[in-house]
Amino acid sequence: MWGDGSGLRYGGDYNPEQWPAEVWREDVALMRRARVNLVTVGVFAWSRLEPEPGRYTFGWLDQVLDLLHDNGISVALATPTASPPPWFSLAHPDALPVTADGVRLHHGSRDTYCAAAPAYRAAARRIAAALADRYAHHPALALWHVHNEYGTTCHCPHTARAFRRWLADRHGDLDALNAAWATSFWSQHYTDWAQVDTPRATQYLANPGHLLDFRRFWSDTLLAAYAEQRDLLRAANPAVPVTTNFVLGDWVPVDHARWAAEVDLVAIDHYPDATDGGAEEQTALAADLARGWARHGAGRRTGDIGRPARWLLMESAPNQIHSGGRMHAKEPGRMARHSLSHVARGSRGVMFFQWRAPAGGAERFHSALVPHAGPDARVFREAVDLGATLERISEVDDGTVDADVAIAWDAASGWALGHPGMPSPLLNHRDEVSAAHRALWRAGFGTDIVLPGDRLDGYRLLVLPALYLASDATADWVCGYVRGGGHLLVTWLSGVADEHARVRLGGHPGAFRDVLGVRVEEFHPLADGETVPLSDGGTGRLWAETVRLAGAEPVASYAGGPLAGLPAVTRHRNDAGTAWYLSTRPDDATYRRLVTQAARAAGATPVCPAAPAGVEAVRRRAAGANWLFLLNHTDRPQRVPAAGVDLLTGATAATEVHLPAGGTAVLRATGTVVRPA
Amino acid sequence: MWGDGSGLRYGGDYNPEQWPAEVWREDVALMRRARVNLVTVGVFAWSRLEPEPGRYTFGWLDQVLDLLHDNGISVALATPTASPPPWFSLAHPDALPVTADGVRLHHGSRDTYCAAAPAYRAAARRIAAALADRYAHHPALALWHVHNEYGTTCHCPHTARAFRRWLADRHGDLDALNAAWATSFWSQHYTDWAQVDTPRATQYLANPGHLLDFRRFWSDTLLAAYAEQRDLLRAANPAVPVTTNFVLGDWVPVDHARWAAEVDLVAIDHYPDATDGGAEEQTALAADLARGWARHGAGRRTGDIGRPARWLLMESAPNQIHSGGRMHAKEPGRMARHSLSHVARGSRGVMFFQWRAPAGGAERFHSALVPHAGPDARVFREAVDLGATLERISEVDDGTVDADVAIAWDAASGWALGHPGMPSPLLNHRDEVSAAHRALWRAGFGTDIVLPGDRLDGYRLLVLPALYLASDATADWVCGYVRGGGHLLVTWLSGVADEHARVRLGGHPGAFRDVLGVRVEEFHPLADGETVPLSDGGTGRLWAETVRLAGAEPVASYAGGPLAGLPAVTRHRNDAGTAWYLSTRPDDATYRRLVTQAARAAGATPVCPAAPAGVEAVRRRAAGANWLFLLNHTDRPQRVPAAGVDLLTGATAATEVHLPAGGTAVLRATGTVVRPA
Amino acid sequence: MWGDGSGLRYGGDYNPEQWPAEVWREDVALMRRARVNLVTVGVFAWSRLEPEPGRYTFGWLDQVLDLLHDNGISVALATPTASPPPWFSLAHPDALPVTADGVRLHHGSRDTYCAAAPAYRAAARRIAAALADRYAHHPALALWHVHNEYGTTCHCPHTARAFRRWLADRHGDLDALNAAWATSFWSQHYTDWAQVDTPRATQYLANPGHLLDFRRFWSDTLLAAYAEQRDLLRAANPAVPVTTNFVLGDWVPVDHARWAAEVDLVAIDHYPDATDGGAEEQTALAADLARGWARHGAGRRTGDIGRPARWLLMESAPNQIHSGGRMHAKEPGRMARHSLSHVARGSRGVMFFQWRAPAGGAERFHSALVPHAGPDARVFREAVDLGATLERISEVDDGTVDADVAIAWDAASGWALGHPGMPSPLLNHRDEVSAAHRALWRAGFGTDIVLPGDRLDGYRLLVLPALYLASDATADWVCGYVRGGGHLLVTWLSGVADEHARVRLGGHPGAFRDVLGVRVEEFHPLADGETVPLSDGGTGRLWAETVRLAGAEPVASYAGGPLAGLPAVTRHRNDAGTAWYLSTRPDDATYRRLVTQAARAAGATPVCPAAPAGVEAVRRRAAGANWLFLLNHTDRPQRVPAAGVDLLTGATAATEVHLPAGGTAVLRATGTVVRPA
Repeated sequence: MWGDGSGLRYGGDYNPEQWPAEVWREDVALMRRARVNLVTVGVFAWSRLEPEPGRYTFGWLDQVLDLLHDNGISVALATPTASPPPWFSLAHPDALPVTADGVRLHHGSRDTYCAAAPAYRAAARRIAAALADRYAHHPALALWHVHNEYGTTCHCPHTARAFRRWLADRHGDLDALNAAWATSFWSQHYTDWAQVDTPRATQYLANPGHLLDFRRFWSDTLLAAYAEQRDLLRAANPAVPVTTNFVLGDWVPVDHARWAAEVDLVAIDHYPDATDGGAEEQTALAADLARGWARHGAGRRTGDIGRPARWLLMESAPNQIHSGGRMHAKEPGRMARHSLSHVARGSRGVMFFQWRAPAGGAERFHSALVPHAGPDARVFREAVDLGATLERISEVDDGTVDADVAIAWDAASGWALGHPGMPSPLLNHRDEVSAAHRALWRAGFGTDIVLPGDRLDGYRLLVLPALYLASDATADWVCGYVRGGGHLLVTWLSGVADEHARVRLGGHPGAFRDVLGVRVEEFHPLADGETVPLSDGGTGRLWAETVRLAGAEPVASYAGGPLAGLPAVTRHRNDAGTAWYLSTRPDDATYRRLVTQAARAAGATPVCPAAPAGVEAVRRRAAGANWLFLLNHTDRPQRVPAAGVDLLTGATAATEVHLPAGGTAVLRATGTVVRPA
Repeated sequence: MWGDGSGLRYGGDYNPEQWPAEVWREDVALMRRARVNLVTVGVFAWSRLEPEPGRYTFGWLDQVLDLLHDNGISVALATPTASPPPWFSLAHPDALPVTADGVRLHHGSRDTYCAAAPAYRAAARRIAAALADRYAHHPALALWHVHNEYGTTCHCPHTARAFRRWLADRHGDLDALNAAWATSFWSQHYTDWAQVDTPRATQYLANPGHLLDFRRFWSDTLLAAYAEQRDLLRAANPAVPVTTNFVLGDWVPVDHARWAAEVDLVAIDHYPDATDGGAEEQTALAADLARGWARHGAGRRTGDIGRPARWLLMESAPNQIHSGGRMHAKEPGRMARHSLSHVARGSRGVMFFQWRAPAGGAERFHSALVPHAGPDARVFREAVDLGATLERISEVDDGTVDADVAIAWDAASGWALGHPGMPSPLLNHRDEVSAAHRALWRAGFGTDIVLPGDRLDGYRLLVLPALYLASDATADWVCGYVRGGGHLLVTWLSGVADEHARVRLGGHPGAFRDVLGVRVEEFHPLADGETVPLSDGGTGRLWAETVRLAGAEPVASYAGGPLAGLPAVTRHRNDAGTAWYLSTRPDDATYRRLVTQAARAAGATPVCPAAPAGVEAVRRRAAGANWLFLLNHTDRPQRVPAAGVDLLTGATAATEVHLPAGGTAVLRATGTVVRPA
Repeated sequence: MWGDGSGLRYGGDYNPEQWPAEVWREDVALMRRARVNLVTVGVFAWSRLEPEPGRYTFGWLDQVLDLLHDNGISVALATPTASPPPWFSLAHPDALPVTADGVRLHHGSRDTYCAAAPAYRAAARRIAAALADRYAHHPALALWHVHNEYGTTCHCPHTARAFRRWLADRHGDLDALNAAWATSFWSQHYTDWAQVDTPRATQYLANPGHLLDFRRFWSDTLLAAYAEQRDLLRAANPAVPVTTNFVLGDWVPVDHARWAAEVDLVAIDHYPDATDGGAEEQTALAADLARGWARHGAGRRTGDIGRPARWLLMESAPNQIHSGGRMHAKEPGRMARHSLSHVARGSRGVMFFQWRAPAGGAERFHSALVPHAGPDARVFREAVDLGATLERISEVDDGTVDADVAIAWDAASGWALGHPGMPSPLLNHRDEVSAAHRALWRAGFGTDIVLPGDRLDGYRLLVLPALYLASDATADWVCGYVRGGGHLLVTWLSGVADEHARVRLGGHPGAFRDVLGVRVEEFHPLADGETVPLSDGGTGRLWAETVRLAGAEPVASYAGGPLAGLPAVTRHRNDAGTAWYLSTRPDDATYRRLVTQAARAAGATPVCPAAPAGVEAVRRRAAGANWLFLLNHTDRPQRVPAAGVDLLTGATAATEVHLPAGGTAVLRATGTVVRPA
């Protein structure tokens, strides 16, 4: 079902175990009405599938899968390992998670296990194997969905033992570990592996190298837990792809880039938390991130489903944005527009959490396609419309997305910038990537997310926003790109530290100092809300630096405060390429102007140069075909100079498309060759 | 002493164990000066009464009780079980309380015990029995005061065992428990009672059914601990009534309605935390609540003291309002005015915490009638005046209070609205009850608080503010009232869930949808401070809803935002009665206008229709007699059209009473027959 | 090296264990360039000095000390006991610290030990003895620096046992303890020492007497740990002085006044956290505090280095102010100006944390003289200039400081004001001392800090800001001073409680009521930001009181609010002296006016009466010599009427000194006799 021409998927998480069988029949009828073709089943069903250790009750699931299959609906079948049943806690108290303070958590919620505990791993393999054994060849099965949103941590003795093994593997010996973590500071020199523990509660600030390696270790531990299940499932039927749903957020101790090579299809859950236009920008970035992981993963393995730059939106909220503990109702049309934004950027479908709102449980008020009020409600009516829309544009599934500009993402830099003892509490890798992405998004440039080390050919401009950690290999990767003629834009906080979070000496930004032609002598973190004026009329915030020129030319300088007259933005024309440096965070308008200047100088062009402000344009492209997505995020009608057949209406635009307020269009370019459905 | 004609009580908590005997003699002289006639003794005296297990030192208490009796002062004698002595902790470490995180608390404060621990319960029974044995027939004894402010929780193994027993009793079997708690969500299906624990620290959101039953269980556990002592004390001398002091606050895990039937006299502690006029409204609501509990309790038992709708203000702060960690001095006159507000609403007296300010201990700066500065201080001078006032109006003790409007209160709804995962973090049952009560208070209507299931005959209007949980029985209670011709006003968040906190499906507000003639399709929680305009010129805040009419007519609609044009306030004329629905929280003026409209249409009338704004009027009524309390909460003199003899001055008002700024009057209606003192 | 004529010290913390030997050679060359003459070595080097229990690796330290000595740089050699190596944790898990909640902390940071644990104390003595054995006669050794910033607490069983011993020693028997702690409150009467524990987590508010004694006990416990090491070091070579660095802050459980008698040289670490002009005021107060401790300590012992009123700034931040988690870059000149402010007030030198910025570890971004960018950076250039400046003014080291006004400081009052259950959460001894000190600093008066009981002869005015705790001895000390003709100014919150934090009865401020001629009947804590108008045009904030005159005359009264017309500021002319009382915190301008009035009436005079606003003047004085420090904290040039030779420029001022914006001068008074260098 994942081959080219198979079309877009549409559906969501489906929890029949919460409902009696008569509701299942209504569910399937409603799914057909909404043209749902894929549902995720079984995510939290462990206690209903294995009510006692080793005793399985698959009857109800058999019925559900058969019913779905009979109605033409495929299944992403989950292993339920994200929430062990209560019997597991009693049988294996040592496998319950422990906080840094030493508090052992109990069941009553989800994710109450330690992923490093042997008993948990064994139980998880057992239920996964039982599911594989029974359903690997079920005709409804389209995808294995392992676990759910890997993300919790632990500080139990199992974890400490596993951490020591991982460290020994990574560092070789204690001398290397001591050097990497700079343990001479505060007398933390280790002389025996037994002295190394997880970063448990301590008296005062923790060691940044320790914290960073613990995050890396834990990401790898969770990945190993995933891979065990994947291998079992794959062995049962190699034709069925396997994935797990990535969850986004600063708290997530998972480096998704490393995971991308281990899944057959990158899948993300996306819940923007902005309640204003920021939600559109968050959506665009999340989709570009997912595509970037998919491409990065493909570079490290041979995939067997679809093109590498495609992926799947596995969860999103139908009609709510959760923000600040509050559920904010999405206004009409937003659900569809967000969905198309994901599809435009390479998602192979649109999946929601969840199909039907539950009456009880902790997430009883989470958004659903069938709400508490039942199908006679706005959200379900919009869901029916969206199903029709996705069917109309189904051909776009064959296409992928390309972009002129690459933005680097690095989970470890994000972790390190959040460590205690940084010069400011306001530092955040995701925020800086977002700011750069927003500037380019508003300027209309297509952007790819790349990971350090990825191939860069084809990109006109590489942007490094707060790429705080840079190994020597990363430094070479960047310098090689510029030596090859590439254009580069680097922001403050990049290249300051090496891969162990040790500061590079001799002047910042250590790893990129030479290619940028600057030498930063001193940091000037700004207070929250504080700004510093720039000579080009803009302002900087969050941060400023004493920048000394060492080959670069000034583009803008500080126009006030203690740095008045010193360079703020610089450009260095290297032998072949050009490298820009931003030593502060510009205001949005200035940032947009600067990236436009850098991108145009590099030869990049916007996707739809004449699109008015607030109209997003994204192109998806296949061999001999391309589709232009136009999304009007404004509350007024807009006209966009563009041509093609609008798949949503069937109308042909010769020179201009009219978009209603909040409306969308998907233009098949004239001359596109469409594969027969 | 509690029979009709016995007059009002006046006094407070008295802690002679903190002072040498020469101070006792000064105390009694000052009490006589202030006309104190009742003091609460022994609340925290366990370590001075039983310094070692089983060894009692009653000598000092004998002296104190004799001294008080010799001076005509009665005693509410407390059992000291709210604070076990340090020796108890060392003897029974398993009886110390444990937090949800597993931290065992230690002595050093008060309430360091687990009420489910057998050792604690045994020790509490032992000291209570010893006190009963010695003092049950002491002539000073007027009331037993069991414990103090039952309110703390625990997560120790004793508690878990008791919780399982309680659950088995309530639900019968695990199938019923699993259904009630919706444990299919997140794989929490229980297959053995041993798997059920208290809601200890877990990874993420807890189960709302679990949280709700734990609160109910704990309230019942504390009640059982109280009842054990009550039974001992009652057996020693059935003539002496027994009570415990209810403490108000969202944190209190006690459903006072269930307790009301188990005490001989409802007694409350009231500490308003508003420092402005809100304190007057808080006082009125607290007093109405106490009277509501008293009436509700009386409906479930045969009482032996006074009329059921009378109660006792057991603690209040003489001259301070504690708010935000700060002690705010009450301005002159406020102590007396607050006191009369309680008496007007049925309190059988005015009791303060505390008589004399202690030099040491955690509450050394708590308010007292005799402050650190000694009796030559404003607060004691006001206390002397108040004693004289209470003596002058003593006859009102025979009266009770009636009201045209009933407002429902439900502790469990308050607990459930505070659960994690609700659509907004701003939901609060107490706040909504307060808002409705305030609107009616400002409009001058007398209000009773009722509990679901209470008799409603005699009420013109029933108001349900955020009655979130409604069992089928509650739904029937409400519908039956309207079917019988009653007028009903329901606010947002009512009837949404059943008694297990499971959402009622098919459209909100599930339990009351039909009687209201509306169907709510979608919630629109508002941000803190956000408002939405209404068509009648008012504004809504906190919440809005997509209301679909299903028989009701619109009264006001949303005039802006995504719901513009849809109904906000509706009225449904049923066959017999009328039902209003408010889908948002109106601003205070609009709320007052709406309740006035609904109440007048229902035939309700204000207590004193011509009273100017800021003058509160309450009537207390006995057979052949009634007294009108007038409280001027403004800082200007006021004239009120009213007639009768002002018991405070002895003056007779023919048509109008003149109240000084902040002043009060208690008018005995002409023709009232007063019982000889 | 500490005799008169030895000149000023300059340097900082030096951590060669973090660097390879080739960096040491660059370090020494740079130190010579900056004229550094003293470095602190070994503070956190335990794990590099004793990598396994009892095995020492002193070779690298031998080399470092020899290298420093060869280059004329002296060493303050630290014992490394503030951070035991990881092996210690594994060998002695019982010696790791435990929080009040019972969480045992782990290594991974600094200070992970319990100072009451026998194993820790033994290990600390052992490494100190080994260092003494090896280096006590090393020619580079100028000072022993024991430990680092004593300040952490513990609740483990070792601590509880030690606490009981300390209490038995202090109180004698349980009766006295029960009386001191007022344990009759909340039934906490102790009948066996085993019942007494540290103030562990409890249900509700803790006992203030318990909290206060625990702080005192812990300060003494840390002092005993210090004294053990000091005695070992002193025994090895009595010629070398011993100290430890005091850290300032409300969280510090150390009463430095008691410690001052136990060190040979008071040394403080000072890190102001204001980023504006407040940093200058914080610096002046910190330096006055250090000098006050030095004088107080000298009164209790016979010192052997320098004059008693001299001390040493042991740590400060070269070019950053840490505030709110952010590192704020000091603007040019500020490092030198702050340094001279310390020297002007009696510091024997200027020491920084730290010499060279580390690449790794928790404090990788802490300020350093040699920053990450290397010596070619502003901060190192300023450091070189400062070295030259200190050499030019070296002669001032012989001088001490005197002042006309004394301000009392009392650590225990600070602790008690922070207890739960106080009338307001805004009470803070340090804030009140700061407010009084700031008023006097802005008015130009020299101020000494005194401790209760210190000799007061020579002072014109004694100020008691929020001296909350006053024993009978303290009351006598104050009254005796006034009886002897002294002038006194007391603020709200002074003398309210005795040394056990029990409130003094009969009217506030109990201990000083008579000498002030007032009787405070009631407190009126104000809300944060609330103000009350005063009759003199000023405003009060934080607090107000019902003040009754009992001999005093009103100076200003409340001009609004519930206290309108009552006295706010009073003056009592006693037989000999005069006593002022401030019942609220005046705004800064009013406060400055009031202290000026009181100080002038008392005969005090500003150091440099004609100095313009923003120019600080401090005089250091030796036999036959004196030096006037002028610090221009403004951003404009200033002219100051003064005469003498400016040691910084060599120029002679006849009548007026010209200071550039942010500039300084150190004027040797004409006629001064300077000792040959």
